[in-house]
Amino acid sequence: MVFIKSAPLLDHYSPAYSSSAKTPVNLQKIMSEFWSDVVKSLTPYVPGEQPKLANLVKLNTNENPYGPSPRVLKAIRGAVDENLRLYPDPNADALKRTIAEYHDVSTINVFVGNGSDEILAHVFLALLKHDQPVLFPDITYSFYPVYCRLYEIAYQTVPLAADFSLNIADYAQPNGGIIFPNPNAPTGRAISLAEIERLLQMHPQRVVVIDEAYVDFGGESAIPLTRRYPNLLVVHTFSKSRSLAGLRVGFAIGPAGLIEALERVKNSFNSYPLDFLAMVGAIAALEDTAHFERTRKAVMHSRENLAAALETLGFDVLPSVANFVFVRHPQHDAEKSALALRQRGIVVRHFKLPRIEQFLRITIGTDEQCAALVHALQEILG
Amino acid sequence: MVFIKSAPLLDHYSPAYSSSAKTPVNLQKIMSEFWSDVVKSLTPYVPGEQPKLANLVKLNTNENPYGPSPRVLKAIRGAVDENLRLYPDPNADALKRTIAEYHDVSTINVFVGNGSDEILAHVFLALLKHDQPVLFPDITYSFYPVYCRLYEIAYQTVPLAADFSLNIADYAQPNGGIIFPNPNAPTGRAISLAEIERLLQMHPQRVVVIDEAYVDFGGESAIPLTRRYPNLLVVHTFSKSRSLAGLRVGFAIGPAGLIEALERVKNSFNSYPLDFLAMVGAIAALEDTAHFERTRKAVMHSRENLAAALETLGFDVLPSVANFVFVRHPQHDAEKSALALRQRGIVVRHFKLPRIEQFLRITIGTDEQCAALVHALQEILG
Repeated sequence: MVFIKSAPLLDHYSPAYSSSAKTPVNLQKIMSEFWSDVVKSLTPYVPGEQPKLANLVKLNTNENPYGPSPRVLKAIRGAVDENLRLYPDPNADALKRTIAEYHDVSTINVFVGNGSDEILAHVFLALLKHDQPVLFPDITYSFYPVYCRLYEIAYQTVPLAADFSLNIADYAQPNGGIIFPNPNAPTGRAISLAEIERLLQMHPQRVVVIDEAYVDFGGESAIPLTRRYPNLLVVHTFSKSRSLAGLRVGFAIGPAGLIEALERVKNSFNSYPLDFLAMVGAIAALEDTAHFERTRKAVMHSRENLAAALETLGFDVLPSVANFVFVRHPQHDAEKSALALRQRGIVVRHFKLPRIEQFLRITIGTDEQCAALVHALQEILG
Repeated sequence: MVFIKSAPLLDHYSPAYSSSAKTPVNLQKIMSEFWSDVVKSLTPYVPGEQPKLANLVKLNTNENPYGPSPRVLKAIRGAVDENLRLYPDPNADALKRTIAEYHDVSTINVFVGNGSDEILAHVFLALLKHDQPVLFPDITYSFYPVYCRLYEIAYQTVPLAADFSLNIADYAQPNGGIIFPNPNAPTGRAISLAEIERLLQMHPQRVVVIDEAYVDFGGESAIPLTRRYPNLLVVHTFSKSRSLAGLRVGFAIGPAGLIEALERVKNSFNSYPLDFLAMVGAIAALEDTAHFERTRKAVMHSRENLAAALETLGFDVLPSVANFVFVRHPQHDAEKSALALRQRGIVVRHFKLPRIEQFLRITIGTDEQCAALVHALQEILG
């Protein structure tokens, strides 16, 4: 039972590109001849297309409804010059310094990657590959089991409670490390720092990874705990609260020993530095705290209004501290509602998966987009 | 015997960052407690710093001395807007269409990645991981054995001839695939398309990967052969002839079956789409053929002049069709010459490795930079 948190994919698929079902039969033969066994074992997967319709209300991939800071745009434009001919700094020193200063840590406590997904991949290989299984919730980010399969790491899912809350007591079992998003995806529910601290103390010999992709929309960051717990790593992204999904920048903060493990993996197996313009944009994003505060508060404010409006329509709304809500209507089938919304030009996310197949995950848009959604749902629900 | 082709690394190292030698002893203990066995087995590696000295003549990483097309800069600047809040197209459709049109293939024959290194990593896992060893030259790009170790692929190096030429006849042996750059790095020597065709016919059941990072500086691209040989994949980068090392964009062209294998690996194990601005820049780079022709011809012209000047100074200069020359002086130690050049503010590449430890790899700079190099060498050689 696994879910996409932030992958830029839609729920409908483009049949036009590289689907094996569309491949001529004679090509199938050629393929298997040259493919490694690894590829043959992969389930063919066709990436979804991003919708290209004009005026679509796009509430399906948890992007920020507000653009990045004008200072970010200005900084990037100013960096677009002939020096693009040069390789970027492989150490990303300037970006690491900015992140370290922002979060009051040292640069040896900062790791950066091409989006938090790349960092998570390194985390699984460097810190979560041990003899015992990694633990993560049954309902969480879909890439965790993917990384486990890639690196041949055993894992054990831990069911969330009936109300989709995460209970630390359920993690009192032998493990090779623990990872979950806080707030969790796609539920939006968070646990407190006290709970995380309890987990860290419960397993002082195991690495605990907190994926804080959505933390800036009302959660409490565990970054300060990284100073006191040698087994805690916290992962962030610039794709959500910093409105920079179009670039690919994520970072991790943790004790120097954990960061060093990530650096070793990156520098041994992976030579992809961050794009120069992406680093420039990320630095400027951290510098404009006013824009950050204004936009994240606007999202949180809209979320509370949207949650109230959806409850008025009869939806059960899970308590969310993320930039999305996870909702279920007792009388209306979620998949049908999602389809009806799409016919009205509004895209939300539906997961056809056990336990949550009657839920919709709705990204918080602008107030206008939220109003359009509520209006459409009023029509659909009758 | 392996070498860095294009990694943005210097020959001297920055001791300041995350070197295990600099880590306090008590931290060492913490590290090993949490690290996976994979990390423990890695040789600590400290990335080199990019030199930050002003006015340095930087001829060490094969960057293009000319900036990207003004149309590239304009296109990127024009794309820097609030839509950076959105995820990039995970399929990179627009970029694939442009590449396909440019090279007269279909989009199902095009794969794109965050630099050609990412593509090479996928290639090893998807197409070169078989029961028999992969073959590549003893003197070639340093990341090939790295990828083999990462994915547990057996490999066998095939010695270049005494004059550092690559002979196809040496590859008449059982293998699980063959890969080399053409022109090769760091030698700059190329083989003809007829030779590549001979190799493809010699091993019709094996994938042959031609890494054409440097082909635009005088080599002959094997891309047209991909229409006739189901076992040929050609890999390109935007970092050299397109002057876009600062972004991270590479692509591969091949028969649909081989491309499909790469797509499956990418979409199953790797969720990193290309940065939106990088795609915009790459598209514009392909569209400005005049800038491309002018700059690559300027580099080739400077190369011939530099080669002649170095020969006048007594250097042996390997015939190069790349944007660098690989040279040896019968009377002067290469490492000492490199150090003496650095003291004069000129950085070239020296590999302290068997067979080539008396060579320098010198990137073709502007005519002014080449003149500064020759002048400095005149002083150094006396």
